[in-house]
Amino acid sequence: MSESFPKAVVLLSGGIDSSTTLAIAKSMGFVCYALSFRYGQNNAVELESAGKIAAQLDVEKHVVFDIDLSIFGGSALTGSGQIPKDRTEEQISSGDIPASYVPARNTVFLSLGLAWAESIGAHDIFIGVNALDYSGYPDCREEFIRSFEQTANLGTREGTTGNKYKIHTPLINLTKAQIIKKGTELGVDYSNTISCYDPDKNGVSCGRCDSCLLRKKGFREAGIKDPTKYMF
Amino acid sequence: MSESFPKAVVLLSGGIDSSTTLAIAKSMGFVCYALSFRYGQNNAVELESAGKIAAQLDVEKHVVFDIDLSIFGGSALTGSGQIPKDRTEEQISSGDIPASYVPARNTVFLSLGLAWAESIGAHDIFIGVNALDYSGYPDCREEFIRSFEQTANLGTREGTTGNKYKIHTPLINLTKAQIIKKGTELGVDYSNTISCYDPDKNGVSCGRCDSCLLRKKGFREAGIKDPTKYMF
Repeated sequence: MSESFPKAVVLLSGGIDSSTTLAIAKSMGFVCYALSFRYGQNNAVELESAGKIAAQLDVEKHVVFDIDLSIFGGSALTGSGQIPKDRTEEQISSGDIPASYVPARNTVFLSLGLAWAESIGAHDIFIGVNALDYSGYPDCREEFIRSFEQTANLGTREGTTGNKYKIHTPLINLTKAQIIKKGTELGVDYSNTISCYDPDKNGVSCGRCDSCLLRKKGFREAGIKDPTKYMF
Repeated sequence: MSESFPKAVVLLSGGIDSSTTLAIAKSMGFVCYALSFRYGQNNAVELESAGKIAAQLDVEKHVVFDIDLSIFGGSALTGSGQIPKDRTEEQISSGDIPASYVPARNTVFLSLGLAWAESIGAHDIFIGVNALDYSGYPDCREEFIRSFEQTANLGTREGTTGNKYKIHTPLINLTKAQIIKKGTELGVDYSNTISCYDPDKNGVSCGRCDSCLLRKKGFREAGIKDPTKYMF
């Protein structure tokens, strides 16, 4: 059945952006292979969210890939460093790269998405990066994505001898509010997603990290009720 | 002590090329962080070789990173596919990509090398790719490496705000014989290395896969005694 539709690998963290991206890939007719990472993040509860979204959106396969980036150190998301809290909108969008940055994360994740894509004969990889309401990470920018795409097409059998790879970034120019509206239209149940960098052990969001602040603002601006449980 | 010397991450598989590359990085004055991968390869005996070489060349740190690429399938090196044997020199150098190709392997390995480099404040990454006596893998070519370097400098905090990353490929234009001569000058003990794609459980090389054939030819042409135990 599904053999007649093209396959796509979709990076799925379990947050708003990647969940919406998955819904978009599905709406474009792709048979979706969702890829999540257990990369040593403190917030492993996001993997539960990824599983719920993968099930809700009926993916062909969901792989949670083990890759312990905490062995390298260098980030508050994988170590014991402090997650920044209560930053203003100006601070969040200042372009400064915060402590939650994980060295080379999207390069690593996309390269593994590429490995899976080549293995299953997919030529399309989706990633929910976003250049507007983001935290200033260099690996969320268009020029990085296009450079990675070129690298992918130079460094694989398929890219050099067959069809080219395309890295899809359907959210790159959307605001968080636009993303939430889009996903809501496509039936994403955002109560299954989590954005918080520092939730408690029951999965309740802190409400104060950059990611929570952007999430709250997004729902507010979209005029859609935020289903998230926050501590603050 | 070592703080006054620049750090480098060196990808180390335990074969001739990566071991020689490590010796070259060391001879250039770098404090070396050797990175090996347990990636689901059938030939896990190469990790023992990597450990011996890392010890012999006195690296600052040796990390064996667990990353199970066999979950994606797609290669004879990580699956149950047949390793090609007894190919002629013409077949090996034909430009055809053999079954031993692992999807996107060097993209994945370099991205993890980059993650480590950024975490420890290194700006130099060494990889022993070689465009002459190689098996036709697209991710061993200069244009792939330069594209990855650009991607690295676009997708990291350090590459965009600090010093640029450099991917060093000291072997790229050397023949296997030249590599072996160079490494011998630098004191590499090649009896600690292994090249075979399909060794027996005691680490004895098959003598018939592409990698064994290239190794034999390299020692023969270098006029240096091959210390390897072969079945054939």
